[in-house]
Amino acid sequence: MNKQILLNSRPEGRPALKNFQIEEIEEVKNGEIVLESKFISVDPYLRGRMRDEKSYIEPFKVGEPLESMVIAEVKNSSHSDFKKGDHIMGMLDWKKQQSHSGKDLRKIDPSIAPLSAYLGVLGLTGLTAYLALHKIGILKKGETLLVSGAAGAVGSVVGQIGKIKGCRVVGIAGSDEKIDHIQEKFSFDAGINYKTTEDMTQAIKEACPDGVDVYFDNVGGEILDAALQNINKAARIINCGAISIYNETEIPKGPRPEGILIKKSALMQGFLVRDHVADYQKAISDLAGWLNSGKLKYDETIVEGFEQTPQAFIDIFDGKNFGKMVVKV
Amino acid sequence: MNKQILLNSRPEGRPALKNFQIEEIEEVKNGEIVLESKFISVDPYLRGRMRDEKSYIEPFKVGEPLESMVIAEVKNSSHSDFKKGDHIMGMLDWKKQQSHSGKDLRKIDPSIAPLSAYLGVLGLTGLTAYLALHKIGILKKGETLLVSGAAGAVGSVVGQIGKIKGCRVVGIAGSDEKIDHIQEKFSFDAGINYKTTEDMTQAIKEACPDGVDVYFDNVGGEILDAALQNINKAARIINCGAISIYNETEIPKGPRPEGILIKKSALMQGFLVRDHVADYQKAISDLAGWLNSGKLKYDETIVEGFEQTPQAFIDIFDGKNFGKMVVKV
Repeated sequence: MNKQILLNSRPEGRPALKNFQIEEIEEVKNGEIVLESKFISVDPYLRGRMRDEKSYIEPFKVGEPLESMVIAEVKNSSHSDFKKGDHIMGMLDWKKQQSHSGKDLRKIDPSIAPLSAYLGVLGLTGLTAYLALHKIGILKKGETLLVSGAAGAVGSVVGQIGKIKGCRVVGIAGSDEKIDHIQEKFSFDAGINYKTTEDMTQAIKEACPDGVDVYFDNVGGEILDAALQNINKAARIINCGAISIYNETEIPKGPRPEGILIKKSALMQGFLVRDHVADYQKAISDLAGWLNSGKLKYDETIVEGFEQTPQAFIDIFDGKNFGKMVVKV
Repeated sequence: MNKQILLNSRPEGRPALKNFQIEEIEEVKNGEIVLESKFISVDPYLRGRMRDEKSYIEPFKVGEPLESMVIAEVKNSSHSDFKKGDHIMGMLDWKKQQSHSGKDLRKIDPSIAPLSAYLGVLGLTGLTAYLALHKIGILKKGETLLVSGAAGAVGSVVGQIGKIKGCRVVGIAGSDEKIDHIQEKFSFDAGINYKTTEDMTQAIKEACPDGVDVYFDNVGGEILDAALQNINKAARIINCGAISIYNETEIPKGPRPEGILIKKSALMQGFLVRDHVADYQKAISDLAGWLNSGKLKYDETIVEGFEQTPQAFIDIFDGKNFGKMVVKV
């Protein structure tokens, strides 16, 4: 039995199950390559593609299948690069089975790491952490690195790279459990639970006594405002995500940053991992090396069942995931 | 007769004459170096130093003399590097005469350019334009450069460097007279009078049909918001000044920029010319070369009389100056 998940309507504000439609479709027997989905990645940035607006990537169309990074097994192939039993990753439709031309598929090796890791620590989230720090953060030993979404898939890798580079690393997350976890499992030096903290500016000041040199921002909004109040001269702010504002229907307002940026000769820079494809190889090789030597750990939240994909996506916005949220088909 | 100008009280909002006090003081006859002020620079950033808060430079103290860049003539000297008749520039008190140790004074040559030019096109404003474009803007031929405060001391040099680099240059200023002027004298390709334009986002879109690659921001606030709506992928926004918010008593709010920065992989970076002292020499040499070959022109508004210094400073916030505002003592 084959199934697919369509965008039923564009979410207004927070996405809901009614925005998705699951339907049965014909089984796929033939095609240049026949793929069977194994793991589907659900990511906050997909919310942006649900809007009908021009961005760095085409918006989803209502009534058509959604897509994201998917790990699949080759069931059948007449393509010379792929054979039955191979595992691949690629930007694929949310379907249990699909045919494919092979374009932009990448073969992955299950002997190096579990399949799902290729959606996380060795996939776009690990690459995002690594390359944003490499291109914008440019950490120096002894500096202070502040990370929001610290227990998330990107944030947890960011923090660990910070420790590898010899920095003081402070994480911001949304529960005491997550704060304990990032300190115990990922060796963060300190953590701040933003849900129970009244004055984030003061809390960051206390957790970062030497100020903030690099702020890796996965959330935007008021946590970014509080971080900006604590930056050092020549600080680098990496705007990697803005989950706090993705569900807003118009651009929310906040304190203007230009005064602080000038006063501190600081920079804020948006980062999209897709702009750096040429650097993926080196990054994956470093990440895999750290993974195998035990310097890099990761979490994943695996939700079972293809039909659970929409709910798993919605749950990200409630912070229900520890690390990368992945659906096992 | 010697005089000095003190900070009488900290301005709340827009500065007013009552915030300044002019008083007679003793003539200076002796000292390692005795200086007689010739030209005093008045600049928007001085407003920041009138606040009682930590910044990149010490705040002014109430009851003490203000200071800024000043061109002075050496009247007397026992210092081996300076002799009577030399002209120097330095960060000096707002006094008609003063004694000085010689530290951080720079000798200037009146045969290369008029004395007042050393406060503008060959001084910190010219250096700001040149070095911010060099360090952050990194203009490529054929790109579009948008400049606010375009008729100002920094903006007019920015625009001309843009033309020298082969860019389309669009200026934003506050009167039709200024818009005509930047096109006629400084060869800007187009101009927008923000005071008579209702929809700045649309006006920028029309003036920059290929989008904005570099936005050199001297004003901050709503003009920055409108510029952000028009940036291209990988745009560079230079936060050089924020005159529109300097007089605000708390940080004003505006649309959050993080979403756009992410979508466009764009950067916003604060620029302080003082961070780049090591590059002054090369910059001044290029600027002087362009000046002498006629590629670089400049305006200055010279206000006569030491006692007019506070009013000249206040007038900047009303945009009463064409180019660099300078007081002739």
